[in-house]
Amino acid sequence: MTDAFVPDTRRWDDLAGPSLVAATSERSIAVVPIGAIEHHGPHLPLRTDALVAEAVATAAVERAAAAGIDAWLLPTITYAKSDEHHWAPGTLWIEGTTLLDQLIELGRSIAMTPVKTLAFVNGHGGNVMLLGWANRELRRRYGLRSFSMPAGAGAAGDGLQGRPDELGQGIHAGFGETSVVMHLAPHLVAPDLPPRNVPERIAGMTHIGFNRKPVMFGWTSDDFGPTGVIGDPTGANAAHGKVLFEQGVAFVSEALAEIDRFEFA
Amino acid sequence: MTDAFVPDTRRWDDLAGPSLVAATSERSIAVVPIGAIEHHGPHLPLRTDALVAEAVATAAVERAAAAGIDAWLLPTITYAKSDEHHWAPGTLWIEGTTLLDQLIELGRSIAMTPVKTLAFVNGHGGNVMLLGWANRELRRRYGLRSFSMPAGAGAAGDGLQGRPDELGQGIHAGFGETSVVMHLAPHLVAPDLPPRNVPERIAGMTHIGFNRKPVMFGWTSDDFGPTGVIGDPTGANAAHGKVLFEQGVAFVSEALAEIDRFEFA
Amino acid sequence: MTDAFVPDTRRWDDLAGPSLVAATSERSIAVVPIGAIEHHGPHLPLRTDALVAEAVATAAVERAAAAGIDAWLLPTITYAKSDEHHWAPGTLWIEGTTLLDQLIELGRSIAMTPVKTLAFVNGHGGNVMLLGWANRELRRRYGLRSFSMPAGAGAAGDGLQGRPDELGQGIHAGFGETSVVMHLAPHLVAPDLPPRNVPERIAGMTHIGFNRKPVMFGWTSDDFGPTGVIGDPTGANAAHGKVLFEQGVAFVSEALAEIDRFEFA
Amino acid sequence: MTDAFVPDTRRWDDLAGPSLVAATSERSIAVVPIGAIEHHGPHLPLRTDALVAEAVATAAVERAAAAGIDAWLLPTITYAKSDEHHWAPGTLWIEGTTLLDQLIELGRSIAMTPVKTLAFVNGHGGNVMLLGWANRELRRRYGLRSFSMPAGAGAAGDGLQGRPDELGQGIHAGFGETSVVMHLAPHLVAPDLPPRNVPERIAGMTHIGFNRKPVMFGWTSDDFGPTGVIGDPTGANAAHGKVLFEQGVAFVSEALAEIDRFEFA
Amino acid sequence: MTDAFVPDTRRWDDLAGPSLVAATSERSIAVVPIGAIEHHGPHLPLRTDALVAEAVATAAVERAAAAGIDAWLLPTITYAKSDEHHWAPGTLWIEGTTLLDQLIELGRSIAMTPVKTLAFVNGHGGNVMLLGWANRELRRRYGLRSFSMPAGAGAAGDGLQGRPDELGQGIHAGFGETSVVMHLAPHLVAPDLPPRNVPERIAGMTHIGFNRKPVMFGWTSDDFGPTGVIGDPTGANAAHGKVLFEQGVAFVSEALAEIDRFEFA
Amino acid sequence: MTDAFVPDTRRWDDLAGPSLVAATSERSIAVVPIGAIEHHGPHLPLRTDALVAEAVATAAVERAAAAGIDAWLLPTITYAKSDEHHWAPGTLWIEGTTLLDQLIELGRSIAMTPVKTLAFVNGHGGNVMLLGWANRELRRRYGLRSFSMPAGAGAAGDGLQGRPDELGQGIHAGFGETSVVMHLAPHLVAPDLPPRNVPERIAGMTHIGFNRKPVMFGWTSDDFGPTGVIGDPTGANAAHGKVLFEQGVAFVSEALAEIDRFEFA
Repeated sequence: MTDAFVPDTRRWDDLAGPSLVAATSERSIAVVPIGAIEHHGPHLPLRTDALVAEAVATAAVERAAAAGIDAWLLPTITYAKSDEHHWAPGTLWIEGTTLLDQLIELGRSIAMTPVKTLAFVNGHGGNVMLLGWANRELRRRYGLRSFSMPAGAGAAGDGLQGRPDELGQGIHAGFGETSVVMHLAPHLVAPDLPPRNVPERIAGMTHIGFNRKPVMFGWTSDDFGPTGVIGDPTGANAAHGKVLFEQGVAFVSEALAEIDRFEFA
Repeated sequence: MTDAFVPDTRRWDDLAGPSLVAATSERSIAVVPIGAIEHHGPHLPLRTDALVAEAVATAAVERAAAAGIDAWLLPTITYAKSDEHHWAPGTLWIEGTTLLDQLIELGRSIAMTPVKTLAFVNGHGGNVMLLGWANRELRRRYGLRSFSMPAGAGAAGDGLQGRPDELGQGIHAGFGETSVVMHLAPHLVAPDLPPRNVPERIAGMTHIGFNRKPVMFGWTSDDFGPTGVIGDPTGANAAHGKVLFEQGVAFVSEALAEIDRFEFA
Repeated sequence: MTDAFVPDTRRWDDLAGPSLVAATSERSIAVVPIGAIEHHGPHLPLRTDALVAEAVATAAVERAAAAGIDAWLLPTITYAKSDEHHWAPGTLWIEGTTLLDQLIELGRSIAMTPVKTLAFVNGHGGNVMLLGWANRELRRRYGLRSFSMPAGAGAAGDGLQGRPDELGQGIHAGFGETSVVMHLAPHLVAPDLPPRNVPERIAGMTHIGFNRKPVMFGWTSDDFGPTGVIGDPTGANAAHGKVLFEQGVAFVSEALAEIDRFEFA
Repeated sequence: MTDAFVPDTRRWDDLAGPSLVAATSERSIAVVPIGAIEHHGPHLPLRTDALVAEAVATAAVERAAAAGIDAWLLPTITYAKSDEHHWAPGTLWIEGTTLLDQLIELGRSIAMTPVKTLAFVNGHGGNVMLLGWANRELRRRYGLRSFSMPAGAGAAGDGLQGRPDELGQGIHAGFGETSVVMHLAPHLVAPDLPPRNVPERIAGMTHIGFNRKPVMFGWTSDDFGPTGVIGDPTGANAAHGKVLFEQGVAFVSEALAEIDRFEFA
Repeated sequence: MTDAFVPDTRRWDDLAGPSLVAATSERSIAVVPIGAIEHHGPHLPLRTDALVAEAVATAAVERAAAAGIDAWLLPTITYAKSDEHHWAPGTLWIEGTTLLDQLIELGRSIAMTPVKTLAFVNGHGGNVMLLGWANRELRRRYGLRSFSMPAGAGAAGDGLQGRPDELGQGIHAGFGETSVVMHLAPHLVAPDLPPRNVPERIAGMTHIGFNRKPVMFGWTSDDFGPTGVIGDPTGANAAHGKVLFEQGVAFVSEALAEIDRFEFA
Repeated sequence: MTDAFVPDTRRWDDLAGPSLVAATSERSIAVVPIGAIEHHGPHLPLRTDALVAEAVATAAVERAAAAGIDAWLLPTITYAKSDEHHWAPGTLWIEGTTLLDQLIELGRSIAMTPVKTLAFVNGHGGNVMLLGWANRELRRRYGLRSFSMPAGAGAAGDGLQGRPDELGQGIHAGFGETSVVMHLAPHLVAPDLPPRNVPERIAGMTHIGFNRKPVMFGWTSDDFGPTGVIGDPTGANAAHGKVLFEQGVAFVSEALAEIDRFEFA
C-alpha cells in the first residue's frame, strides 16, 4: 500500500480507494457536513444550512489537519429532514427515516475502511435529534465512534448565536444566520430584510421552549407566521457574520481535536 | 352524548368510547407516560424508567386535574428504545423505528377524538430524541399539539438530578435514580449498591458530553464499564428520592398547566 | 451470580438484569399479557381487553408459580391491533405490522437471557392471527418456544364464552365480556347496558363465521351496527363474570403447566 | 361498453380490461387460489399446495358459475408464507410481510373495477392467519368484502381431512394430502411413501395443538423429525384423494354461493 | 440421495425437495418466467405478458434441456410491476418494492439448494429495470449468478419486435404482441382490433425515447391516449405471431446455453 | 411575487423560497446531477462519478439557459447505489431502496413548486435502472414529467464512450472515464495507470453483456479481477477527456432543449 498515490487533499473522495486505505488509520476522523435545502424566509437562499455547514466544516478540517488531527472531509449531505418547512415551496426535503437509513448505511461503508470515527457537522437544527439517534445506531451496529455537533458555537440547533433581543428564539433566518450568509454569500441575500418575527409568547414560557428548556414541542415554521422567519434578521450584517463564522470554525476544529483524544473511560 | 356514563377517573382507558367523546374537548390533554424495561445496574429493577414515568405522570395528572387542567392519563409505554443497553440480559427493547411508528399511530388515533393535545412524560433518557422527532411528525401529519418532557426536574434526559460529585454524569442508575426507586419501590432495590462509576474523563471534556454540551456522541452503556451504571449510587436514599419525585410531580403538573395555555403565536 | 439480590416477585421487570439471569433458567416461561385499548360499546371501558388479559395472566402466573412452574410476568402490551374498531373515537391502535415488529423484537431480547419460552395471554380477538404469526417468527428466528392463548376458556378469540342465545356471535362487548368487567372493575361499567346486537344472519350461515367456521371474512365492527357491540350484553352480571374469570385463570395456569412439560417430539 | 368482446371464460385474465368492466358487476366475486411451493416430504411435489388450491378453485368456480354465481378465477399465488419449511431445500418462500403487501396491493387493484368481493381459496395451512389478517386490511382500506377458505372441507388449515389414527395431526404430507395428489397428479408421487410421523405427544395434549385447540405454538416442520412429514401417508390412495378433492370442490362452490348472498347485517 | 424419486419433468415444483437436491447441481439453471396482468388495449387479454413469458420459457427450457442444458422451470410470476397501467381497471399490479422483495427472497430460497444460477424470462417491459436491479442484489447477497432476458428477440422491453411503420414505438399491444397472442391464444383476441396509436412525436425525437435512446422518461400508458395501446395492432396475424414466438424460443434457449457456459473472467 | 429578489444564478438553492416561486414556471426544468462515491481503480478519485455528473450538468444548464431553456441546477446527489463496489474500502454507498425513497421524496417537494419537470443527469452506470424506475414513480405519484440521461454521450451507463479495443466493456475506470477525469481534475489522477482489464470473455458473448445486449446479468466489480477496473485506462489522456466532456455537455444541453419542447402526444 505504501506506493499508493495520495494527492494533497483533505477530501475523502479526492482519493482513490486504495489511497484512502493507505492514507488513513484508526486515528482518522471522517467529517460529514450536513445541512438542508429549505425555506429561510424571503431573504436567504434555500441552501443556507448546507452552505454554512460545508463552509465551516471545510475550514475546520483544514485547521484541524494543520494541527495534526487526521480529519477527512466527506461530501455534504444537502437534502435532509426539513419537515418543519414542508409547507414552503422551494424546500427540498426527505423523510427522517430515509435520512436515518442513509446515515446508517454511510456508517456501514466507513466501517469497512481503516477509519473508525465519524463526526457530523450540522447546519440545520431540524437534524439534531436524528443525528443523536444515528450516533447510537452507528456505535451499536458497527462499533464506530460517532459524534455530531453544530456548525456554530451557540445554543441554537445549528449553533448560530442570536442577538439578546431575540430572546433565545432566533433559531431560523434570524440575526445570526442572516449575518453569516451575508459574510459567506452576500450576493444571495435580498437587500430588503423581512421584519422581526420573534415568538415572544414562547420566549416567556417557563418550561416549554426551543432549546435549553425541558419541554420540547412539535412545530412547523408556519405556526409562527407566514414568513417562515423565527427570529429577527433586522440589523444583520456581514461583519457580525464573520465573527460567528470564525467562532464556528474554531469550535468545530477544537471539537475535532477533542474527538481525536476521546476515550470512553 | 350528554347522557354518556363517565366514571370518576382521569384514565383515558377507564372510559367507554362515547364517554370519552363526551368528557373531552379541544382543551383536553392526553398524557402518555413512557419509560423502558432495561438494565439499571445490579441494584435497580428493570422497570425503573417505566415505574418513575408512570408514578410521576399519574400524580401530576391528578394534581393538574385538581387545578382545572383537563388532563387524561393513557397507558404507559413500557417497551422502548433501549438500544444502549442491548447487551445486558433482561433489557426488553424495540427498535427506534418501531417505537416511532407506534407513537405516530397513537397520535393518529388521538386525532380522531376531540382531544388535540398530547404530552409524553418520559422516564428514559434514551427516548428523548425520538420523542422530539415524534412531536414534529404528530404536528405535521395530524395537526396535533405534541409535547414531551422528562419525568424529573433536572438536566438529565429523564430529569433526575444527580449529585454534584457525579459531575453531571449521573445519568443512569446513579444517585438520583437510585434514590427515587428507594422512595417508590424500596423492596426492589438491592441492599448492596454498586460502586461509583462516573466517566470522569468525559466530565472533563470541553465540548463532548451527555447533556448540555454541544457535541453529542454515540455510546452503549458497556462503553463505561461492566456494571451498566453511569453515575454514583452510593449514598442514595429514599428521603432524597422523595424530594426528587415531588420535584418531578411539581414540574410535570406545572408543565401541563403551561401546555394548557400554550399558543404558538 | 449466586449472590444476586432477587426480591420476592414473579414480575420480570421487578428484577435487576443480573438478578434475572440468576433467577431464571431454560425452564422459565416469560408470560406476556396482550390486550387492546378499543371501543367496547357505550358501556365498557376502552381498556377492557388489557384489563382482562392482565388480570388473568397475573393470577395465572401466581397460581402456576405456586405449582412449581417458573413463570414470569412481563409488562402488558396495551396498544395493539384494533383496526376493526379504527372508526370509533377512543380506540388507540397501532398497525399490525408495527405490533408484529414489536413482538419479534421483544423475542429477540428474551432470547438473550436464559429464558427460552414465551407465552402470550391474549384478551383481544383481533390479535389472534398476528400472535400465531409471531409465534412462528420467534421459533424460526431465535429458536424460542413461543405460545399464545386466550385469556378465557371459551371459543371466542379472547376466550370469553358467550351465552347460548348469542348464537356463538357474542365476540365483543357481549354477555361474557361485560360480565367479566362487572366482576373485575364494576365501577367502570355503565349502569345502562346497550341492547342486543347479534348478527343473526351470520349466525345462520353454514360456512362463513367468526370462529370455528371454515370461511373467514374481513369486517370492521361498524359493519354490524353503530354501537360496536357484537353480542348481547343484557343480563350480564358480576357473578357470571367471576365464573368466567376463574375459568380463564384455571385455563391459563393449566396451559402454562402444559407448556412447562412441552416437547416437540 | 356493451360491445366489448367477452370470450367464453371464467378467468379474469382471459379478458381485456374493458371487457372485464363490461362483464363484471358488484355481484361478481374474484377468486384467488393461493398455495405454496414447499417441501412436502420425500414423496410429494413441491407444488402440492398450489396444485390443490388451483385445481379445487378452478373446478369450484366452474360449478359456482353454472349455478349462476358470477365468480372469476384469478392467477394462483404460488410463492407464499412457508417459513416453517425454510430449512428444506427446494422450498421457495417469501416473507409473510411481503405476501401481505402483495395481497393488499392486489385488493387495491380489484377495488378499481366493478368487483367488490374477493375470495381466497387456500391450499397451505401456513397462509391461514395471514389471510385472516389480509381480509381485514382489504375491508378497512378499500371497503372490499374479503373472504378466505381452505381448499378442502376438513379441519386442517388447508382443509384436507386426515385419517382418525393420525389423531388430528395429519396436517402436512399425510394421508389426506398424499391421497389428493395421487388423484390429481399420480405421476408426481414417489412410489415409496415415507413412514408415519405423527407427533403423538402433541396429540395427547389438552390445550396445545395445531388446530381446534386453544393454545397455538410456533413450530418449524423439522421440529418433528427429519422428513418434514407431519401425519401418516401410508395407505394413501387416489380413490380417497378423489373423495377429498370432490368434497373440497363442493365445499368451495357452496361457500361461494353463500358469499354471493352474504350481507353483514 | 441417489434413490430419490425423480419424475420425468423439467418443472422445479414437480419434484419433491429431496428429489430436487438429487437431480440438480451447480450446473443447473432455475428459469423464472415473469409477466404481468395488465391492460393491453380492448383486444388482448390481461394476461398477455404472463402468457407469452410462460409459453416461451416453457418451450425454451424443453429445448435447452434437449440440448443438455440442465434448466428447470419455476412457477411464473404473474402479478408484477404494472404501475404504468394502474389507471386501467382490470390491471392487477403490485408495488415495485414488493416485487423486488419477492425476487430477493426467491433467490434466498434458491441459494439453499445446489442450484446457483437463476434466469428470469420476462414478458413485460415494465419489469426490465427492476430485474436488472434484482440481478445485482442476488449476486451481492447470495452469490448467485442471476440473469434476465426478454421473452422475445427484439428491441422492446419484452423483446417482441414491432413493424417498421410503428417507428420503434410498438411497445404495448401493438403489431408484435397482438400477433403473438393470436398465435398462442386466438380465442382470447377480440375480432375488432383498435386503431393505430403510435406516439409519432416521440418517435421523432433525437434523444428521448422508449428504448435504445439515451434519455429515459417517466410515463403511464394513458399519457398516449385512452386505449392504452402504444403501437399499431392493425394487420396483426397469427402467422407472424408464430414467427415471433419461435424467434423468442430460439433466443431464450440459446441464451440459456450461453448462461450455461458463462464465466465472469 | 414580482418584487422577489432573484440573484443572477441558475442554482435552485441560491434562491429564497419565494424567489423560486417568482422565478420559475411550468416551463422550468429541475436538473439533478447524480453520481456516486465509489472505488474507481487505484488511479481515479472516489468521487469520479459525482465530479463528472456535476461538471457536465453545470455546464449544460448554463448552455441551455443561454439558449432560453429555463433550467435550474439542484444539489448533486453524491451517495448513491454502488452495491457493485461494496467490497472496496472507500466506496460510500446507500441501499437502492433508500436512494429510491430519496428521489421520490425529492420529487414530492418539487411538485409543490411551479416546476413540473425533473431531469437527472447521471454519472454512474449503477444508477441507470433505479432512475428509470424513479421516473415512473414521479410521473404516477405526482404527475411530474421526469427524465434521466447519462452525463456523457456514449453507450455506457454513464455515457462515457470507450475505445474500440475495449470491445464495449470499458464501463468503469477505463479509457473514457480516466480521460475525462484527467481533463477535469488532473491532480487527482495517479501517475501510474493500472493495466488493461477487459472482460474479453463477456465481450465475445452473443446475448449476455453490459449494454446493448439483451441478457442482463448481476455482477459486482470484483467478479472481474482485483483492481475494480473494467476497461483499459492505458493511454487515457486529458485531450481526449476534453472531447468526451464537451460531447457530454452538448448532449445534455440538447437533451434539455428536447425536454423543453417535449409533449407526450
